[in-house]
Amino acid sequence: MIARLDLNADLGEGFGHWTAGDDEGLLELVTSANVACGFHAGDPVIMRRVCEQAAARGVAIGAQVSYRDLAGFGRRRIEMEPAELAADLLYQLGALDGFARAAGDRVRYLKPHGALYHAAAGDSAVAGAVVAALRAWPEPLPVLTLPGSQLYRQASSAGFPCYSEAFADRAYLPDGSLQSRLAAGAVITDPGAVADRVRRLAESGTLLAVDGTELTLSPDSLCLHGDTPGALELARTVRAELVRAGVEVARFT
Amino acid sequence: MIARLDLNADLGEGFGHWTAGDDEGLLELVTSANVACGFHAGDPVIMRRVCEQAAARGVAIGAQVSYRDLAGFGRRRIEMEPAELAADLLYQLGALDGFARAAGDRVRYLKPHGALYHAAAGDSAVAGAVVAALRAWPEPLPVLTLPGSQLYRQASSAGFPCYSEAFADRAYLPDGSLQSRLAAGAVITDPGAVADRVRRLAESGTLLAVDGTELTLSPDSLCLHGDTPGALELARTVRAELVRAGVEVARFT
Amino acid sequence: MIARLDLNADLGEGFGHWTAGDDEGLLELVTSANVACGFHAGDPVIMRRVCEQAAARGVAIGAQVSYRDLAGFGRRRIEMEPAELAADLLYQLGALDGFARAAGDRVRYLKPHGALYHAAAGDSAVAGAVVAALRAWPEPLPVLTLPGSQLYRQASSAGFPCYSEAFADRAYLPDGSLQSRLAAGAVITDPGAVADRVRRLAESGTLLAVDGTELTLSPDSLCLHGDTPGALELARTVRAELVRAGVEVARFT
Amino acid sequence: MIARLDLNADLGEGFGHWTAGDDEGLLELVTSANVACGFHAGDPVIMRRVCEQAAARGVAIGAQVSYRDLAGFGRRRIEMEPAELAADLLYQLGALDGFARAAGDRVRYLKPHGALYHAAAGDSAVAGAVVAALRAWPEPLPVLTLPGSQLYRQASSAGFPCYSEAFADRAYLPDGSLQSRLAAGAVITDPGAVADRVRRLAESGTLLAVDGTELTLSPDSLCLHGDTPGALELARTVRAELVRAGVEVARFT
Repeated sequence: MIARLDLNADLGEGFGHWTAGDDEGLLELVTSANVACGFHAGDPVIMRRVCEQAAARGVAIGAQVSYRDLAGFGRRRIEMEPAELAADLLYQLGALDGFARAAGDRVRYLKPHGALYHAAAGDSAVAGAVVAALRAWPEPLPVLTLPGSQLYRQASSAGFPCYSEAFADRAYLPDGSLQSRLAAGAVITDPGAVADRVRRLAESGTLLAVDGTELTLSPDSLCLHGDTPGALELARTVRAELVRAGVEVARFT
Repeated sequence: MIARLDLNADLGEGFGHWTAGDDEGLLELVTSANVACGFHAGDPVIMRRVCEQAAARGVAIGAQVSYRDLAGFGRRRIEMEPAELAADLLYQLGALDGFARAAGDRVRYLKPHGALYHAAAGDSAVAGAVVAALRAWPEPLPVLTLPGSQLYRQASSAGFPCYSEAFADRAYLPDGSLQSRLAAGAVITDPGAVADRVRRLAESGTLLAVDGTELTLSPDSLCLHGDTPGALELARTVRAELVRAGVEVARFT
Repeated sequence: MIARLDLNADLGEGFGHWTAGDDEGLLELVTSANVACGFHAGDPVIMRRVCEQAAARGVAIGAQVSYRDLAGFGRRRIEMEPAELAADLLYQLGALDGFARAAGDRVRYLKPHGALYHAAAGDSAVAGAVVAALRAWPEPLPVLTLPGSQLYRQASSAGFPCYSEAFADRAYLPDGSLQSRLAAGAVITDPGAVADRVRRLAESGTLLAVDGTELTLSPDSLCLHGDTPGALELARTVRAELVRAGVEVARFT
Repeated sequence: MIARLDLNADLGEGFGHWTAGDDEGLLELVTSANVACGFHAGDPVIMRRVCEQAAARGVAIGAQVSYRDLAGFGRRRIEMEPAELAADLLYQLGALDGFARAAGDRVRYLKPHGALYHAAAGDSAVAGAVVAALRAWPEPLPVLTLPGSQLYRQASSAGFPCYSEAFADRAYLPDGSLQSRLAAGAVITDPGAVADRVRRLAESGTLLAVDGTELTLSPDSLCLHGDTPGALELARTVRAELVRAGVEVARFT
């Protein structure tokens, strides 16, 4: 069974006039906040506020770095030189760290967003660019990503602490990867079903794949979502189930 | 006479495919580099390179912060809430500081760019927003600006070290302010005339205003330009004249 | 009394992942759609969809032009050269007109957004830049704006049809101008109060200012809002009251 | 031999403060101007000026459409939905057409830029998105692209006039494709060598590939470059050689 688990969620994903998700509601539930850094979402006012609120609550501030793509919310892969990507990531890390330090804290980990998350998981050159940014960063920076991904392996080899995440509300394929969001049933919205999955994961460290295969997982963090109707309620359910199952909910950093 | 003087210039003002100025040429001449932070110019690749080069040469890295205005090169005043402006400045400070720290250094001072330079000099609320960003920044950060400006006074009152700059190639009005660039003769391009002004400043701490009034100045830094034809040559002349006059050219930070 | 009135509202003000307002709900109510053109809001996908929907319903497509300011939603005044502003407006007009023509229609009028709306109302140089854009546009383009404003006067003098708008849910000052949004009571949200104002306007062509002064208005259009909770319901109330009072709701173009 | 040939070049590729290429010099040489539309380069002031100058000289105005990528100058491929890409292209077409019409002309053809040029040449879905934009455009719009490319074939099949271009200063592979710019010798800068190639092309309709294979070409246009030192002089050489060989230099539209 799982003794201890972090809860992470994407925060600060509005921009200017536009809002996205319930930052304050999520901050009551998570132990780690993936804060958008201005390239796919997040403006300086939002970044500052989320850093202050996270620091005040003891929630770990993570850099949710992305391709430069406001128009596509970072969900479009951009083919760019690794050195350019590494510089873009350092820029975002630095910007967020300024707000974190202004709030008396600092950036505690990095988690790629959207298309970069997937590219860094599967593409060796992209993962290498992320690791290049980690190497340049003045402090050792942990990474939160998919277990078994290119980024996980390369960052581990380079000596950076790596933490893996699982999803209670996403369907898994038998090989342990996530089913594409485009497939029917890829996102699980029924609170009862999600609660069942959380309990199973907490008690036995397993999840059932779409074909019934039992997957053994040992995640460091569970990813919550807060940007759809009912998502915050579902996030509360997840946390409550973990607590009920005796799992200590605590940050991994 | 002036015993010691810093030389500063704007650097890293290209963007992507586009270049501006001769960064490497200027880095051989200046002691302080005002590095563009991505809001009016400067992309992450450029910022990283300039920080590395400046750190390697012992040139002080300053944050040349700006309004968010790539299309207008930061030369357009934008009426925005002080809290929004302060957050925009912190974002830029943080981003640049990440690159400075990656290069083994850190941001040593702040100098507003373009329309923000002028707004912070003359508008109390804008100056206040800059000082609010200084207060939030985790380390005490010096400011480089016009002597007698709102920013100089407010930042000084708040306890931040303030350094003043003068211009050898700009015409002054009798009250010590700069003549508008729109006026004929506002920018002095004749090397002999500039050399004369540098000598006078070095030897007597004075400059002549457009009407012949003798202005007494005690600048901490002289601002060089490198983005026009002949500008780099002129900058070399300025530095050579200072050295010839026995002025120690050294960073103020 | 008022025999005929247009209803206009801002549409297409999302961007990428972010949404704003209920475009489809408003399109059932308005006769003129102020479509955002990508500078303060609105991306090409949204612009295309709104143009198609407006054209299909016979709703007039207007260009809701703005300063280039996604981060500030066009609510920040930017001090720029009139020639630069005119070019920015032509760019937006052209972009929207392409979508309108693709939908079998064309841009029917121009209405400035946010800070540009206010700047063009009160500042002669800004109004002049808008009129310069109108002069350059290949077809005579009507303007929708505040009666008595600089833009209204300059555009009229230049021979462009000008249409005035009134607000049923905004408090007026005795001089006929709008009370600042910052003042308490500036925005009227009570459906009963709004309905009363619409009835009075329809029946007598008057509205009461905040001090009880009776203002005589002869608007061509009434501006509806759809981006706040309850706003769409209020917009329905306004339209229903107009119809009940025997006013013909029809586009001004 | 070739009786008639168009000359095209990329124009208006500056942005705000930054310049690129010698627009006025090129306008004296070309018969077709690929005008940047603001997504990879080109701001409204530049677009307006280039359209006015092109229209005044009888140079055809083409829309040099691109991915939305100012930071990468449109040289980075972006994986996006075809419907989003088509809308982005319509936006750019409309914006440029507004300036063209303001100058008494209209957009005469479309040529994709940079990464989009290559993606539309080789990727069926990307070519399909470009053709979808052509279908939506209110007038039949010719395309300038590589002969044999996906875009050439799909646009032709859909009934749009397609024109092919060749390069006098680029090395060809034996299969008629261009050698990658990364390969040594891919760009030919020796004026004599370029002149030889132009003469051969004019007189026999052939070019030699890098291995000596004789390629038979029948281009409608020759692409000139103006953004590197010596490029404008080389462009003059190309045009002079064509004229000397008796080729009529005339727009294809």
